Amino acid sequence: MKATCTQENLKRGLNIVSHISSKNTSLQILGNVLIKADKNVVSLITTNLEMGVRCQVRAKVYKEGSYTVNSRLLNDFVGLLKNEKVDLELKDDALEVWTDNQETKIKGESAEEFPLIPQISKKSAYVCGIDELVRALTQVLFAVSVSETRPEISGVYFNFSDGNLTIAATDSYRLAEKKIKLNEKNEVEKEAIIPAKTVQELFRMLSSVSGSASEEGGASKLEIYFEENQVMFVFDDIELVSRVIEGQYPNYKQIIPASHKTRAVANISDLVSAVKAASLFSRTGIYDINFELKEGKLVISSTNSQLGESKSRVAGKIEGDDNKVVINYRYLLDGLQNIDSTDVVFEMIDSSNPCILRPAESLNDKNEAIAAQDYLYIIMPIKQ
Amino acid sequence: MKATCTQENLKRGLNIVSHISSKNTSLQILGNVLIKADKNVVSLITTNLEMGVRCQVRAKVYKEGSYTVNSRLLNDFVGLLKNEKVDLELKDDALEVWTDNQETKIKGESAEEFPLIPQISKKSAYVCGIDELVRALTQVLFAVSVSETRPEISGVYFNFSDGNLTIAATDSYRLAEKKIKLNEKNEVEKEAIIPAKTVQELFRMLSSVSGSASEEGGASKLEIYFEENQVMFVFDDIELVSRVIEGQYPNYKQIIPASHKTRAVANISDLVSAVKAASLFSRTGIYDINFELKEGKLVISSTNSQLGESKSRVAGKIEGDDNKVVINYRYLLDGLQNIDSTDVVFEMIDSSNPCILRPAESLNDKNEAIAAQDYLYIIMPIKQ
Repeated sequence: MKATCTQENLKRGLNIVSHISSKNTSLQILGNVLIKADKNVVSLITTNLEMGVRCQVRAKVYKEGSYTVNSRLLNDFVGLLKNEKVDLELKDDALEVWTDNQETKIKGESAEEFPLIPQISKKSAYVCGIDELVRALTQVLFAVSVSETRPEISGVYFNFSDGNLTIAATDSYRLAEKKIKLNEKNEVEKEAIIPAKTVQELFRMLSSVSGSASEEGGASKLEIYFEENQVMFVFDDIELVSRVIEGQYPNYKQIIPASHKTRAVANISDLVSAVKAASLFSRTGIYDINFELKEGKLVISSTNSQLGESKSRVAGKIEGDDNKVVINYRYLLDGLQNIDSTDVVFEMIDSSNPCILRPAESLNDKNEAIAAQDYLYIIMPIKQ
Repeated sequence: MKATCTQENLKRGLNIVSHISSKNTSLQILGNVLIKADKNVVSLITTNLEMGVRCQVRAKVYKEGSYTVNSRLLNDFVGLLKNEKVDLELKDDALEVWTDNQETKIKGESAEEFPLIPQISKKSAYVCGIDELVRALTQVLFAVSVSETRPEISGVYFNFSDGNLTIAATDSYRLAEKKIKLNEKNEVEKEAIIPAKTVQELFRMLSSVSGSASEEGGASKLEIYFEENQVMFVFDDIELVSRVIEGQYPNYKQIIPASHKTRAVANISDLVSAVKAASLFSRTGIYDINFELKEGKLVISSTNSQLGESKSRVAGKIEGDDNKVVINYRYLLDGLQNIDSTDVVFEMIDSSNPCILRPAESLNDKNEAIAAQDYLYIIMPIKQ
């Protein structure tokens, strides 16, 4: 193997792929990046057995071949070079890396030892905007279950239908759902549960290119392909392949209350301060705060027998009955901080039914806030 | 106790003092802030027994008195309030905190339980500029010993003489020294070893006001007072009191080589990249890299039997003999990254004598870099 590329391209590729190389000491090769020189391209490949990523780097290839070296070491090392030409050559069981001012040998392992990553054919893509998906994932991903005891909620639910992608995540105490439009028609409906770690990795990769597409000529669209129990996300010259989680995602639509008895509209930033203030006096391990709706205000309070007590009022427009509920403040804060608007619309039936939060989007002709329908956050109350 | 102040003033004061309140569970009151209302001022006081800090907050005092509550809780809580009037009142063994939109009770402990902080008279101040001292501490503090086995080097050396303040720190493997001018005359020479934690706390406090003095009308000068085995730093309405370390600081002047055989001038940022590249191949636990000076270049290299090897060249002006030394890369990086200039002047005798780094400040009439004399960094070589 012998190839030349620019430090900039190599660095970008290594940044993308090296993140998932594990420090798995029992299978050391999983810490390596597979470098594969074919014709006019060098491919960088890493895997942690759950998912794998391939990234192509433009290069002049003098001799085809492949080799693996520690991915983080190579990434750190290349990041320290100037933006200049980098020569890569496999010689005597080491990767030699040459530039004008330095020469380096990195010992590695044969490419034959490296696990294969499934090939998925690029048929029947679901296509969405990268910026839209990054924003959507920000609003949903935090709600995913961190426990693996119920595998079907340890992933993010993706549903493709009617020209929309709906993503949802829950840990059974709260749920977030966001709908975005697909960019291209695809008549085939599809649902899948993607492991949280895969979605986090996808989010990390997309965030690094999001917002910069137009300036730097990078991708603005993401293609998603499914094949058997695998999913592949493709943008630029990057492919992320992962297993999907088998099982049935909970039918969460049925727990969304169809009606409400009280509706409140309030400023999110005021509410966040009040909830944080009450949180300081919530009981550790329960994290409960009281949330009351009455006559033009939301009253947030909590009491801790050791520390003291706090009660704050936030001005808001309240319609319907006086009402109250006990909520885990962390779930409430997560929701408030990820609703992408100035005001929140909060709806509830009573202290034992789920509360619904939506962004307050626009005003109707009576000057009342209308809730946006593309985002939904549900919190289960703490029963007293 | 009953007083009113602005949230802004109270928040600033709590930010200053709450940092040193410890989470010492065996003496719970050390986690508290002592709030003391006298005439037209509220004092906030914390201590961890090693040092104590007092901060005065402008206030309208209706009833004098004092009380203590958990410092971090109060700090977090006040930080969440809007900038408005805050009423503080001691009632039934709790501090009540009222604003327009909230009421809070914080349970605390009697002020009588709170440890006393020494009073030091404001006589014979040493006065220096806050911005200058902050910069100087940045350049020196990192070199202090983290071990307590030799108490005299577990602190920062302060020497006041000839109208200058010289500060130095060492862990016996490397040493940093910086000299700044005092703002006011004080004929009395003085030297003292101030505990590293006190200096770190001072640095944290000064950093928060440094650079903003002119805009916000804050202090630009720091006063330093000594009394018996105590030191007090005073700026704005803030007093930081600490013990000093007893003992004799090592006479480090005698290890500074008076001459050199090789002198190199090179760009610091290029050198930092080269040292970091070599560091990836240094031996763990030894961190050694080879540093060679010859004909117009500095060659930095290292070899690791498992990972491989790397050799980088940095262009530089070399005067004198070809030379080489083995150095701990972390000490070298610390020095290079804290020399506040574009180029470094590096001087050495041979592989067993200390190396000296200084900022390259200006050029003489032969276009040669002159080293600044107000900063010095010495590294002991690794003996082979």
